[in-house]
Amino acid sequence: MSTTENFSTVLAELRDQLPADAVVDDPRALSVYQYDRSGHLSDTVPSAAVFPRTVEEVQHIARVCFHHRIPMVPRGAGTGLAGSAIGSTGEIMVCTDRMNQILQLQPENRLVTVQPGILNGELNTYLATQGFWWPPDPASKDISTVGGNISMNAGGLLCAKYGVTREAVLSLQVVLADGSLITVGHHTVKGVTGYDLCALLIGSEGTLGIIVEATLKIRPLTPGRSVTLGASFPTVTDAAEAASAVTRHGHTPAMMELLDDLTVALVTEHTGENFGSGNSFLLIQTDGPAAATEAEEIGAILTDHQAELTITDDPEESQRLVGIRRSVFPSLEAKGQLLVEDIAVPRSTMAEAFARIRDLEQASGIKIPTACHAGDGNLHPVFVVEGQDHGQNREVPEAIWDVAGQVFTMALELGGTLTGEHGVGVLKSRWLPDELGDVQYRLQQNIKAAFDPHNLMNPGKVFRPAPTA
Amino acid sequence: MSTTENFSTVLAELRDQLPADAVVDDPRALSVYQYDRSGHLSDTVPSAAVFPRTVEEVQHIARVCFHHRIPMVPRGAGTGLAGSAIGSTGEIMVCTDRMNQILQLQPENRLVTVQPGILNGELNTYLATQGFWWPPDPASKDISTVGGNISMNAGGLLCAKYGVTREAVLSLQVVLADGSLITVGHHTVKGVTGYDLCALLIGSEGTLGIIVEATLKIRPLTPGRSVTLGASFPTVTDAAEAASAVTRHGHTPAMMELLDDLTVALVTEHTGENFGSGNSFLLIQTDGPAAATEAEEIGAILTDHQAELTITDDPEESQRLVGIRRSVFPSLEAKGQLLVEDIAVPRSTMAEAFARIRDLEQASGIKIPTACHAGDGNLHPVFVVEGQDHGQNREVPEAIWDVAGQVFTMALELGGTLTGEHGVGVLKSRWLPDELGDVQYRLQQNIKAAFDPHNLMNPGKVFRPAPTA
Repeated sequence: MSTTENFSTVLAELRDQLPADAVVDDPRALSVYQYDRSGHLSDTVPSAAVFPRTVEEVQHIARVCFHHRIPMVPRGAGTGLAGSAIGSTGEIMVCTDRMNQILQLQPENRLVTVQPGILNGELNTYLATQGFWWPPDPASKDISTVGGNISMNAGGLLCAKYGVTREAVLSLQVVLADGSLITVGHHTVKGVTGYDLCALLIGSEGTLGIIVEATLKIRPLTPGRSVTLGASFPTVTDAAEAASAVTRHGHTPAMMELLDDLTVALVTEHTGENFGSGNSFLLIQTDGPAAATEAEEIGAILTDHQAELTITDDPEESQRLVGIRRSVFPSLEAKGQLLVEDIAVPRSTMAEAFARIRDLEQASGIKIPTACHAGDGNLHPVFVVEGQDHGQNREVPEAIWDVAGQVFTMALELGGTLTGEHGVGVLKSRWLPDELGDVQYRLQQNIKAAFDPHNLMNPGKVFRPAPTA
Repeated sequence: MSTTENFSTVLAELRDQLPADAVVDDPRALSVYQYDRSGHLSDTVPSAAVFPRTVEEVQHIARVCFHHRIPMVPRGAGTGLAGSAIGSTGEIMVCTDRMNQILQLQPENRLVTVQPGILNGELNTYLATQGFWWPPDPASKDISTVGGNISMNAGGLLCAKYGVTREAVLSLQVVLADGSLITVGHHTVKGVTGYDLCALLIGSEGTLGIIVEATLKIRPLTPGRSVTLGASFPTVTDAAEAASAVTRHGHTPAMMELLDDLTVALVTEHTGENFGSGNSFLLIQTDGPAAATEAEEIGAILTDHQAELTITDDPEESQRLVGIRRSVFPSLEAKGQLLVEDIAVPRSTMAEAFARIRDLEQASGIKIPTACHAGDGNLHPVFVVEGQDHGQNREVPEAIWDVAGQVFTMALELGGTLTGEHGVGVLKSRWLPDELGDVQYRLQQNIKAAFDPHNLMNPGKVFRPAPTA
């Protein structure tokens, strides 16, 4: 289908069972769906956006699209960093904005069932009033949806101790490309009936189906007072080695964040923050009943690695220290458009990863300030396109992609991965075969075909489109 | 292929690149592969068993089998409880007995890489000397392999706090049906490149490929002294409600095991154990730096539920209490052949699940002693076929399967699952469509076909064979 006339039929069929305001085809309202927060912009404006409220409405949308072979792009809040949830002409955005209800809390089973469009932060605000929390903690948590977190298998600051999104989801309801509905996973702690399609769908970036309901594994609020350590180091190598040593000594702090020298300088420039005599910074938080003892032991390890140390259990001072980490991206965005990369490496190789990033800077003349979730070896090397405002979403210059490609290669050489938590989307699809190998790449494509034989679910994302003959 | 002559060709080709003693086709040596520990016996003796030592040897075996379209059945130690790793005539057992090496420990990355045939207990003995442990803890741990634990996504006593096998595996190397080799998962804490095939393979019961190497997520040994509580209750309802209350109050003990009145009576008969005045028993263990405080708080909850309480941090007395739980199956096996069922239900419904098992006993006249991993709502209702020795592996009478089927239906009605940790295999394949629904059942079959288009990997397990025309 490609003619305007046929698309009018599609819109009419969609409107037939949806409220009037739930189908939008005004191009001026649709250009927002050409981009997410990755900086990438699709070539053309998607043809429509739909705003279902119920599972049945999503099924109706999928049936109409399936019948007419119209591709669908599921979209949450559009805060992704890989260009996964953006659309082009001929595609329909399936937006979960109106599916934002908390359906049921079962405190005694430590689970909550929600619609996909609820914001992570909003859910956690509610859960806190009930004595619970949901651990996934991406930087975007206040503005990103639970459905989006699940689609991308979102990470964040707390993963080494509390796991990624995959560990925090029990069950999903998913509408497949043909409009059929499946329930995957279990509402129980254990369950081994058939293949674990719940785990498969988490992180599948909208390419297998549309998540319409999620049952989440929640935790009781952590008891006790958390303790925060801020440590500045003479060099980034000292900081990275100190972080590795913390893990090696058997500690798993709730949070362990590393800022390299370039990042520290940019944060200082933007916020006026004083980092003391060092030029790199490590932020650590311990929690739970042993928080104080653990913080003390960690403090001793940091001091052994030349740290200048602050340690506090005062909530306000803790907040200030954590705020330094949260100010990293605003500080960088002030300099220009960002390409935020996302490699993960084995924790023992963090210092080497930083050293090799410095080598790449030297060779290319491009600066790469890097912040790192040091508890899990997840580095965010950032490329700043100066002279372009962040949010303008212009194409990243190919010279920067060249260096980014070398960063990915370095990560694979160290035994790591080209994306720790942001996903593949369109931004990294060209490197995916390098990591998966040809056999697994084809196998993954065949699995997609088993779910979606006509390639209607978010086509062209994760896997590169086959070259047209 | 079905003629003996052709099978000779297969054996010759296998022997061509394997040591002489690595290919066994003497039927007397093969009858052992007709059964596992489920009590189920296959109809016929498998045609051969092979004992590779290396990845390359497994690839050779798969290529030969693929070429001749011979089905392969991966097998670890044969301790499964679902009839997943048993073979029949025309099939070749791929046994991992000789692939039992620890390949590499990386303490600083908290991972260990092993071959699949190493025993869980043996691995943990080694890890303990290095200050680590691997959490999966099935009852069979001393005699089951890591590869088997992964194939079945094994559970155990520690799952509510420490997760199931899926949470303890980072990466797998897998030989596919055609002999090709893929590496799935990541050696890093985070990683989101493409679909999570590592999670998909965990619990796939040998139907997607042969696991030839596994990189496992290990934990530092838990510091401090664990505390053990033994509590006897007037009724199983009191015990189940007490267990639910422990979870509801925000506690996650390392271990929480419930024995109902029938089980308690059989254990007393077999071991002479004295359970005090109550007839049902709850065993709880807390660990970590807050073990003593947590045990005290839990003790108060149990006392509120009519418990007669023992509490100890003496290692010997702890061991004795945990030994009571470990003596359950030997005590039951002394009475006859067992069919050990394995439902999981939401934790809030445990008391109701026990009540409904009592109703089924009344209606059927068949006793169903039940032990339960009460931290995660995983019940093991046991059927004892008296007059048949356990290990004889005779068919379970259809009257017992009828009641077992009603137990499964009850679990699904309570929002649970028909297998919490044992798997589907051949024993539960007839009920699998009831839980998955037709759409997901077909989808799972299509996913298997994407991995294994000729259905050579452990055919007839998990999914029932299609009726022959």
